[in-house]
Amino acid sequence: MIILGVDPGTRYAGYAVLKKEKQKTSLVDAGCFDVHKSGELVNKIGDLYGLVLKKAKEHNVTHLAIETPFMYKNAGTFLKLGYVRGILYLIAYQNGLKLSEFSPAEVKQAVTGYGKASKEQVSNMVLKFFKIEKPKRDDTTDAIAIALCALWRL
Amino acid sequence: MIILGVDPGTRYAGYAVLKKEKQKTSLVDAGCFDVHKSGELVNKIGDLYGLVLKKAKEHNVTHLAIETPFMYKNAGTFLKLGYVRGILYLIAYQNGLKLSEFSPAEVKQAVTGYGKASKEQVSNMVLKFFKIEKPKRDDTTDAIAIALCALWRL
Repeated sequence: MIILGVDPGTRYAGYAVLKKEKQKTSLVDAGCFDVHKSGELVNKIGDLYGLVLKKAKEHNVTHLAIETPFMYKNAGTFLKLGYVRGILYLIAYQNGLKLSEFSPAEVKQAVTGYGKASKEQVSNMVLKFFKIEKPKRDDTTDAIAIALCALWRL
Repeated sequence: MIILGVDPGTRYAGYAVLKKEKQKTSLVDAGCFDVHKSGELVNKIGDLYGLVLKKAKEHNVTHLAIETPFMYKNAGTFLKLGYVRGILYLIAYQNGLKLSEFSPAEVKQAVTGYGKASKEQVSNMVLKFFKIEKPKRDDTTDAIAIALCALWRL
């Protein structure tokens, strides 16, 4: 079971690849895709598709986990995140990945035991669990938390 | 200039291909993709991607025209339409199509001269313009109107 967790965004998108073998969970890869310089939204969407697909293939991913949508105050942001989720759905479809979605509260609950945990609490828990250094961007730890949630829940 | 107009939806999606040569505008193809039986959303998204891509390649399309998003009362519907728009963006990106978006009011204004025209007025205008029979679904005439708006505006 190899899970790719993605924290979608149209500027930065965190990703994390977790592998579960027998009882051992290992963090294979994690980071943040940066498409904020891609230009127009159409280019960002296209670049992000390529970047996520490459990671999925590189690590022979079997599962794709993303956070479920929740309504933003800003309709434009909400819609753009829908665009990103659409291409993640497409990647799952085209590559036979099992897609699972979790609400932000579910991810927090799974990782920290508290559904209303702060971003920092989630980050701290993830860093401790895998004994890794704090990455540059929160998007990375968010993606690890999403993948971890999927791994524990599936 | 060959324009593919798409009226996106997660059950039905209208499409229309218009060609402009010199001063002549012709309707090459139009209809409605039916993905309401594809099953889960991930399959609908995947199937729709394949169907739209096939039409774009079949007719050597150069431009893709879609209606710009507007906020729905139902956040779930709004989000799902975002998913569809995401894959349309991807098709534009992957095939070098020029993407243009128009608001529903812009499409109505362009086709009927009145931004608040009814669906029926839009449909009647389109049917008269191309001297065609009324199709089964409004999605088809909506897509023709979107393509026509793009053709007149670009």
